[in-house]
Amino acid sequence: MILLLTAGLWLTGSCDFETTEIEEPMPENHKKDFAIALHGGAGVISRDIDPEVRDNYLSSLEEALTLGRDLLADGGSSLDAVEAVIRHMEDDDRFNAGRGAVFTSEEKHELDASIMSGFDLNAGAVTGVRTVKNPISLARKVMEESQHVMFAGDGAEQFADETNIERVANSYFSTERRREQLQQARDQAAVMLDHSGDSGLKGKRDRYSTVGVAALDRDGNLAAGTSTGGMTNKKPGRVGDSPVIAAGTYADNNSCAVSATGHGEKFIRNVVAYQICAIMEYQGLSLAEAARSVIHEKLDKGDGGIVAVDKQGNVTLEFSTAGMFRGAADSDGLFEVAIWD
Amino acid sequence: MILLLTAGLWLTGSCDFETTEIEEPMPENHKKDFAIALHGGAGVISRDIDPEVRDNYLSSLEEALTLGRDLLADGGSSLDAVEAVIRHMEDDDRFNAGRGAVFTSEEKHELDASIMSGFDLNAGAVTGVRTVKNPISLARKVMEESQHVMFAGDGAEQFADETNIERVANSYFSTERRREQLQQARDQAAVMLDHSGDSGLKGKRDRYSTVGVAALDRDGNLAAGTSTGGMTNKKPGRVGDSPVIAAGTYADNNSCAVSATGHGEKFIRNVVAYQICAIMEYQGLSLAEAARSVIHEKLDKGDGGIVAVDKQGNVTLEFSTAGMFRGAADSDGLFEVAIWD
Repeated sequence: MILLLTAGLWLTGSCDFETTEIEEPMPENHKKDFAIALHGGAGVISRDIDPEVRDNYLSSLEEALTLGRDLLADGGSSLDAVEAVIRHMEDDDRFNAGRGAVFTSEEKHELDASIMSGFDLNAGAVTGVRTVKNPISLARKVMEESQHVMFAGDGAEQFADETNIERVANSYFSTERRREQLQQARDQAAVMLDHSGDSGLKGKRDRYSTVGVAALDRDGNLAAGTSTGGMTNKKPGRVGDSPVIAAGTYADNNSCAVSATGHGEKFIRNVVAYQICAIMEYQGLSLAEAARSVIHEKLDKGDGGIVAVDKQGNVTLEFSTAGMFRGAADSDGLFEVAIWD
Repeated sequence: MILLLTAGLWLTGSCDFETTEIEEPMPENHKKDFAIALHGGAGVISRDIDPEVRDNYLSSLEEALTLGRDLLADGGSSLDAVEAVIRHMEDDDRFNAGRGAVFTSEEKHELDASIMSGFDLNAGAVTGVRTVKNPISLARKVMEESQHVMFAGDGAEQFADETNIERVANSYFSTERRREQLQQARDQAAVMLDHSGDSGLKGKRDRYSTVGVAALDRDGNLAAGTSTGGMTNKKPGRVGDSPVIAAGTYADNNSCAVSATGHGEKFIRNVVAYQICAIMEYQGLSLAEAARSVIHEKLDKGDGGIVAVDKQGNVTLEFSTAGMFRGAADSDGLFEVAIWD
């Protein structure tokens, strides 16, 4: 397995909150046949982590990215790629989605997910799901098999009862390291955000990692999706940005597809995913410019980041945190995973 | 009590889905000291309704509008005006919010509300509330007394437990005519939308009436809020646009404040409330132009409508349904309520 890393990835030791974009090998107006970008959460990710842990994360990102790239290369739809990659990351207990989700204040797991099709603006979302192994697939069923966009809590569980979706006990999502995080959060009497800047966590192995994917397929259709376990020690019923269409996820073939991760409340209030699309559509800026504007001007440093793909297959991975688990690939041979600047 | 009605309000008998705006008595660049716009839902509202019923609705709208106008005239904040007027409409069983809310498929009531401050983009929302007399006030408490933006279902009820907010039995919200609507919907094996175009309902006394308010106060601060009982016969846990910040409600002092009503799913997918603000901010269109663009170009005929106020105090009431219960007032003496074109 070969990891293609951004030059200097491991060398820069500073933590200066600057961000980088993965360089485009072609002029921006060259349309790619397909493209995909993914994230596994943004936040304070110490550069001092055990190299083995670091490499395991990079391997996880690379596996997920390979899955999505190959699916798109084979002519699969962007919706299928978004769902398949997020399912893979939900099953990977390194990330805060599906198995490995954080604990609520009641020592349970409540999962959120959303998915959107840029072709017809169809969308599906679930919040407060407790027994669905892959919430992203339930969100897709809401999109395709109900006349609604969003189901919450017991209603989402009831909708799951009507589908053939795989169910698990709530304890399936539990992992020892998330239980330790809950105890840590309780000790600090704090709610730890996905992007928590709590310096006490630096140097520890814990990560705060919502997952999300944006993709363009060979038919020119964009799609995006996001899945999360929310915040450690969160109150029951709290809805963050991940299941909110326009905040955590948006896709429109006329502009771009975006998945966000970070301080959910600020992402809702600033309509982060859709605002990037709106700036492209109404102000005529490029995806990169639109994403920079929202992440660095509308939001505050440390709030989080996004991954996005536009209709030309340009990819932007923008964040204002110290790091973001991320990756991008396209039909021109781009294939990169990274954590820090 | 004198009702100041748009000229010709009762005279036009056609149902041609055209819309009108309340005329501005001053040039558009004249800044009003305050302004308020409200709605009680959009949909197929028969012109053949009993004149007494019609007048009762207009009286209800006038009462609510008077309350808001007087509060703003006295120097009250736009947030206070939005909350007070929506509370009043929640208590009025003519509207589908608070008492008089529609029934779910399980013969219960699940209420949604959201509120947003244009000054700081702070926001609060609740969905699936069952025992809170005035959901808009719980949404405001979420905004001001929690670090979160949105709570769903049991979590929203638990948050209510932590506040001094007035609670009621779920049956408090029940009215006979909503029970008849549920039976009707079951007979038709259909989910009746707030904006239902079901011709079987024409000429009946039933209305489908989410409520919402947008306001500008003397300090130049915009605010908006929306409250609803959702759809008759809806599945438990279905979340419509009303509690979704950016879809049903948005406010930003840099552009405008909007409350929407109509086909919730399409309003979420098209980010209706925020998209109007985004067009103003990024394309430089006026509020009226931005609202027309979203309601008539992005959405389909019959999908619903919005009420909005911009930072200059311009008011727009735009809809593509046959009617919308609505009203608007400002510091220049505008005071109008209306139902049809």
